[in-house]
Amino acid sequence: MGQVQTRMEQALKRLLPGPEIAPQRLHQAMRYAVLGGGKRVRPLLCFAAGQLVGAPPQRLETAAAAVEMIHAYSLVHDDLPCMDDDTLRRGKPTCHVEYDEATALLAGDSLQALAFQLLAELGLCADPGPQVAMLRILAQAAGSRGMAGGQAIDLESTGKTLSLPELEFMHIHKTGALIRASVLLGAHCGDALDPAILERISRYAHCVGLAFQVIDDVLDSESSTAVLGKTAGKDAAQQKPTYVSLLGPIKAKEWAESLRMQSREALSGIDAGAGRLRELADFIVTRQF
Amino acid sequence: MGQVQTRMEQALKRLLPGPEIAPQRLHQAMRYAVLGGGKRVRPLLCFAAGQLVGAPPQRLETAAAAVEMIHAYSLVHDDLPCMDDDTLRRGKPTCHVEYDEATALLAGDSLQALAFQLLAELGLCADPGPQVAMLRILAQAAGSRGMAGGQAIDLESTGKTLSLPELEFMHIHKTGALIRASVLLGAHCGDALDPAILERISRYAHCVGLAFQVIDDVLDSESSTAVLGKTAGKDAAQQKPTYVSLLGPIKAKEWAESLRMQSREALSGIDAGAGRLRELADFIVTRQF
Repeated sequence: MGQVQTRMEQALKRLLPGPEIAPQRLHQAMRYAVLGGGKRVRPLLCFAAGQLVGAPPQRLETAAAAVEMIHAYSLVHDDLPCMDDDTLRRGKPTCHVEYDEATALLAGDSLQALAFQLLAELGLCADPGPQVAMLRILAQAAGSRGMAGGQAIDLESTGKTLSLPELEFMHIHKTGALIRASVLLGAHCGDALDPAILERISRYAHCVGLAFQVIDDVLDSESSTAVLGKTAGKDAAQQKPTYVSLLGPIKAKEWAESLRMQSREALSGIDAGAGRLRELADFIVTRQF
Repeated sequence: MGQVQTRMEQALKRLLPGPEIAPQRLHQAMRYAVLGGGKRVRPLLCFAAGQLVGAPPQRLETAAAAVEMIHAYSLVHDDLPCMDDDTLRRGKPTCHVEYDEATALLAGDSLQALAFQLLAELGLCADPGPQVAMLRILAQAAGSRGMAGGQAIDLESTGKTLSLPELEFMHIHKTGALIRASVLLGAHCGDALDPAILERISRYAHCVGLAFQVIDDVLDSESSTAVLGKTAGKDAAQQKPTYVSLLGPIKAKEWAESLRMQSREALSGIDAGAGRLRELADFIVTRQF
């Protein structure tokens, strides 16, 4: 994990426009939003799926960087005053606090464009067919029927009580779509996969994406701002429906554990190449931050 | 022009998620931001360039829709309180006034993702190679070294006096990049072009993009809110450097006319297929709104 994280930090530094390139303040804000923090869960999933298909590390780096830039942009916009209005992220002031709102807005917008630019790089794949497929996967996951749509449902749900299926629907979009895309992009970086195996990986990604969110809800209610590097207890303060508010902490943890088991079952019958994916399911459910 | 505009309105209606699809408010805001207004200058340029290369109309529709969605998202974000803080656009309340700031932010984000999703559509091009090139052109034009970067320079320049080259640098990014992309995308929708002709078209697009902005500055200072459908006189009120503030209205108009001539010269030697591009250069410089 540490190796992939270090490798990604270097790749992201290289793939982001340099801080000396005009417009400098914008590029500095983009780098601030992406570099020097985060668990890099999505890149880790991308690399782990790439292991299954013998994907070249450089292609995985680019795919993982594209996903991470979409993720970083969503955090920058989510933290804006008109959204969650948060001041702390990854242990640092949020982008609009460090810079200003307009710069944060444009940095988020630019990170989204850069993600697609990276995946559209000339020569990324030997065959441009899978490359177009990767662009399609990322665009669908990021848009109104994926991550951005999930954030809109989140906004509408604040202060309401959701049923478990409604909560799941929200998180399948808000968090799940991009996590699933991370796994699928990794799997598209190598040799073409048997559709039946792709289906199993997709099932794995679905379960892991939900488990990630259940644990996020648990940590928000049980951990501290210092450990998380972002404001803890925010869900309850903002009256957001969560797995903890709906199920209570004990049943929420049981649900995460069940999703972990389901994600591992989805991979049964796939050989040792799936080892890292299995380990990441464990990491996602047992993490403390 | 009317034919292409009508055709585009239908295409955009079809390509945007329906207002009944969840999350409904987000999809309604996206449709509000895109439909029922605008001159559709970028789609017109895309179709006109497509005429040169015998491009199939359905592919042009998709490419033009992708560009128009990037343009519409940029207007939604540009109108937000933390940017230009405007309340009128295309003769209607701006998106965040009609909906709310958070919804407008997410509608803009989703429109950007949708633009790339459209260009990544399975089967858009018979050969995925040019399709990846189209995605690359749009991503570069939209990002921090294109349109979004231009908006950042615009922010930094407010209240300052720019030199003519600095003003041009700003507008080549802010407006020019996407206008150039519109022309290049249209040219990529058909048979492969001779690089020398592509170079001429690119030169045409550069001049037309600048001319568009010079006239925009003239209209902002000389026309009325009723005619423009957006707040007139905003540049002077916000102390933004413009071609009018720098050159005065007479020299600004002469500069636009010179750019129109340069754009037509760039096309000299290209046969009748360039007729619509020539007409659009005339339209862009003589338009009254």
